[in-house]
Amino acid sequence: MSVPIDLLADRLRRASEEAASQELDLLVVTPGTDFRYLLGHETSTHERLTCLVLAAEGHRAPPALVVPRLEAPGLAHLPLDKLGIEMVTWADGEDPYLLVSDLAGVPKRVGVSDEMAARHVLGLRDTLSGVEQALAGTVLSALRMRKDAAEVAELRAAGEAIDRVHARMGEFLRPGRTEAEVGADIADAIVAEGHTGAAFVIVGSGPNGASPHHDLSDRVIEPGDVVVIDIGGPLPTGYNSDCTRTYAVGGEPDAEIRRAYAVLQEAQEAACRAVRPGVTAESVDAVAREIITAAGFGERFLHRTGHGIGLDVHEDPYIVGGNDLELAPGMAFSVEPGIYLDGSWGARIEDIMVVTEDGGQRLNNRPRDLVVL
Amino acid sequence: MSVPIDLLADRLRRASEEAASQELDLLVVTPGTDFRYLLGHETSTHERLTCLVLAAEGHRAPPALVVPRLEAPGLAHLPLDKLGIEMVTWADGEDPYLLVSDLAGVPKRVGVSDEMAARHVLGLRDTLSGVEQALAGTVLSALRMRKDAAEVAELRAAGEAIDRVHARMGEFLRPGRTEAEVGADIADAIVAEGHTGAAFVIVGSGPNGASPHHDLSDRVIEPGDVVVIDIGGPLPTGYNSDCTRTYAVGGEPDAEIRRAYAVLQEAQEAACRAVRPGVTAESVDAVAREIITAAGFGERFLHRTGHGIGLDVHEDPYIVGGNDLELAPGMAFSVEPGIYLDGSWGARIEDIMVVTEDGGQRLNNRPRDLVVL
Repeated sequence: MSVPIDLLADRLRRASEEAASQELDLLVVTPGTDFRYLLGHETSTHERLTCLVLAAEGHRAPPALVVPRLEAPGLAHLPLDKLGIEMVTWADGEDPYLLVSDLAGVPKRVGVSDEMAARHVLGLRDTLSGVEQALAGTVLSALRMRKDAAEVAELRAAGEAIDRVHARMGEFLRPGRTEAEVGADIADAIVAEGHTGAAFVIVGSGPNGASPHHDLSDRVIEPGDVVVIDIGGPLPTGYNSDCTRTYAVGGEPDAEIRRAYAVLQEAQEAACRAVRPGVTAESVDAVAREIITAAGFGERFLHRTGHGIGLDVHEDPYIVGGNDLELAPGMAFSVEPGIYLDGSWGARIEDIMVVTEDGGQRLNNRPRDLVVL
Repeated sequence: MSVPIDLLADRLRRASEEAASQELDLLVVTPGTDFRYLLGHETSTHERLTCLVLAAEGHRAPPALVVPRLEAPGLAHLPLDKLGIEMVTWADGEDPYLLVSDLAGVPKRVGVSDEMAARHVLGLRDTLSGVEQALAGTVLSALRMRKDAAEVAELRAAGEAIDRVHARMGEFLRPGRTEAEVGADIADAIVAEGHTGAAFVIVGSGPNGASPHHDLSDRVIEPGDVVVIDIGGPLPTGYNSDCTRTYAVGGEPDAEIRRAYAVLQEAQEAACRAVRPGVTAESVDAVAREIITAAGFGERFLHRTGHGIGLDVHEDPYIVGGNDLELAPGMAFSVEPGIYLDGSWGARIEDIMVVTEDGGQRLNNRPRDLVVL
């Protein structure tokens, strides 16, 4: 899906309004997902400055795209004319920050995109001297957090695609194979099921499962292992999947593991049920955390309950203590509590959820039990 | 090759010294190539702050690695004990910038790594209030620009690997195939010849060759096309290849193209010959540019003559007007002039060169003629 021009124009207009309401005079957005959200196209970032310069509502300056001269032909397909955006090029040896400054008027506060490299942040700071810098992410995330119907449809398609990979796990995950071998097959399946690539493939077997962000190793999977499989990637439109299931290889695990897993499953279920408009992000975290803590595993739940998802795998809203943001329809995020027993085993269950008008809907639907393979 | 501990210790010590000599009190380095250079390991960057905190020489604070709690098990393999680096973890919901501030003492000027995301740059700015921020890149590039023998050996191996791919171009580049089909085969060959991935594959056929950073398209290659092939990627050690050759498909091109190509080849040759210790980076650019300009193509040479290469594909030193840095032994960079005729065709010749004690040596050695396939 190419993003319709009207929608891009609307996003640009709302970003400009939101900037004004957050008392920013200007947004400077370098390539990345914010850039893709506003212009409908991905472009790679380089050491050379490419940026969208977007004035807040109330300012006169029309939007501009500052582009290194040699990148200009490659960006000729962007619908800049239709969006009323001027392309301004600079050549090697020229100062691109001065160009931004010329386009900027006399701003008091400038929002720079959250992913902008420090070299550009400080380059702009030095040229726009005396201008306060703030993060543009607060403006962009206000827009990006609320997915429209087409975006939810993409996240749903991504969820279905990664569910199909989990459904095939019996093909890949067998005793005697290394995590790396299993992971390579999973990565191929992620692509075969419609993603453009495997953004991450975690196969945490046995003690490796106790490291939440373990990826792959040469450890050979043994009968009796509990294995955490956390996988995902982007669809061609850029929207991501992310789903974790925990498997027991070669038979039922022992009673202690089954008891802890039951607690985890109850916590994940309860947190998912707690999702609805008007509740805070931190309250969803608290639901999962209280159940796990009451069962004595509080110290073993090493991370927040979830993260927003969309064009980024991790984006607002974060489901974490201290985040009093109220959930609203269209927000999409993971609910993924975990329990990690150092040196022994770990488990995590993760679904992507989208907030509906009166509750929440899961976009992943594979069984959440400890599936025995 | 795993980087020896003594070498890492030496890099950390020299970074600390160089920071002091550049009047920085502290370096804060987030994951990326600077991080990999100093710690010998790659780690992925996330929205959560991971950073090396390294005080300048003369300060008391020992180096520390600030790590999100859930990433700590995944970083347990780093040789932190041997390097005298303390690991300091933080949990979701805590303020990691405050931790950095506690570790920092009372610095006046802090260097942040060039690739650090704005969210962390501004997070540190707000917590270390009143502390001036500068780029750590000037410190790190002072070290990284001068490759040691092992690094040159890696760049040489990378050059040989990408030369083997160019040597196979007749297998891939044929009339009737699309740029994307050719590019997919080249990407496979890049991996088959020893790279961990294809970082970039430019197949600029016919008019697409006139866009220096064109990548791939569905354009079908026709007999008579001039095709720019600019390819490279990292070896397992992280050191990159990058080599461009221009091919004529299905027969000799016309006299006008041959004349322009001869100018380009002469310019590239002369610029390579100009490389030696003590000359400035911009003087090497000028050598290529003057020859191309004298032949009437000055406006068609859209970019600088080259870029440094190592753990990054693009790094210091840049071979560009305005860069009066004096070349010194161990510096490695591309020499890659190009001529681009809008809407018609383009050509570029690129070799990686390393500065020796008394001259320069090319790390790419495939024929530089307009090879007819």
